[in-house]
Amino acid sequence: MIEKVNLGNAFASISEHWSPKIAGELNGQQVKLAKLKGGFVWHKHDQEDELFLVISGELIIELRDKKLVLKEGEMVIIPKGVEHKPVAENEVEILLFEPISTVNTGEVNSDLRKENLDWV
Amino acid sequence: MIEKVNLGNAFASISEHWSPKIAGELNGQQVKLAKLKGGFVWHKHDQEDELFLVISGELIIELRDKKLVLKEGEMVIIPKGVEHKPVAENEVEILLFEPISTVNTGEVNSDLRKENLDWV
Repeated sequence: MIEKVNLGNAFASISEHWSPKIAGELNGQQVKLAKLKGGFVWHKHDQEDELFLVISGELIIELRDKKLVLKEGEMVIIPKGVEHKPVAENEVEILLFEPISTVNTGEVNSDLRKENLDWV
Repeated sequence: MIEKVNLGNAFASISEHWSPKIAGELNGQQVKLAKLKGGFVWHKHDQEDELFLVISGELIIELRDKKLVLKEGEMVIIPKGVEHKPVAENEVEILLFEPISTVNTGEVNSDLRKENLDWV
């Protein structure tokens, strides 16, 4: 079945912060949706580039040498191997594109690690 | 250089309809942006699943057995091999996520075919 996904409805089904849900899968990649608030852990993904697109709110992505501030309708690709730390002073809704293999905390074994994600 | 992309600014740089530009590349995939108006050709992609996300406006995707109407903030994945025809009664801005190899008209050799795309 080919069905559309309404991002607003999908985000309404997400209550937990830092807990991505899967909104679609294609070509070995997944589209994930997440609500973020507060600071995440520094981490990197050794094998996967990762795209962040801000749907609502403002997301800071700290890199070791600079800080990116992403507002609604802004996106960035963090290449594999690059350490990054997402920070959201207020709640932000984001869309992620990344390979199915990508785990949110990368190489870091943290309480924030999420595997076997649910679909929206 | 890791730089963000502002979708609004990127769309402002696109004037031609049905002429996608590349906004990012990751894991063998590309993020493309396009403005559509009017009807496209029926086509399919034999090897590539294709994601459409509507950023502004309303996009109709005709399938052989139904018609999807996507409004702003709605997305759909058209699996490889499935014939589809995008139609935009008024101008619509969309984000596409698909393998680098994907050509807009799929297997169809049309005047609308675009290859060697520019970056935004």
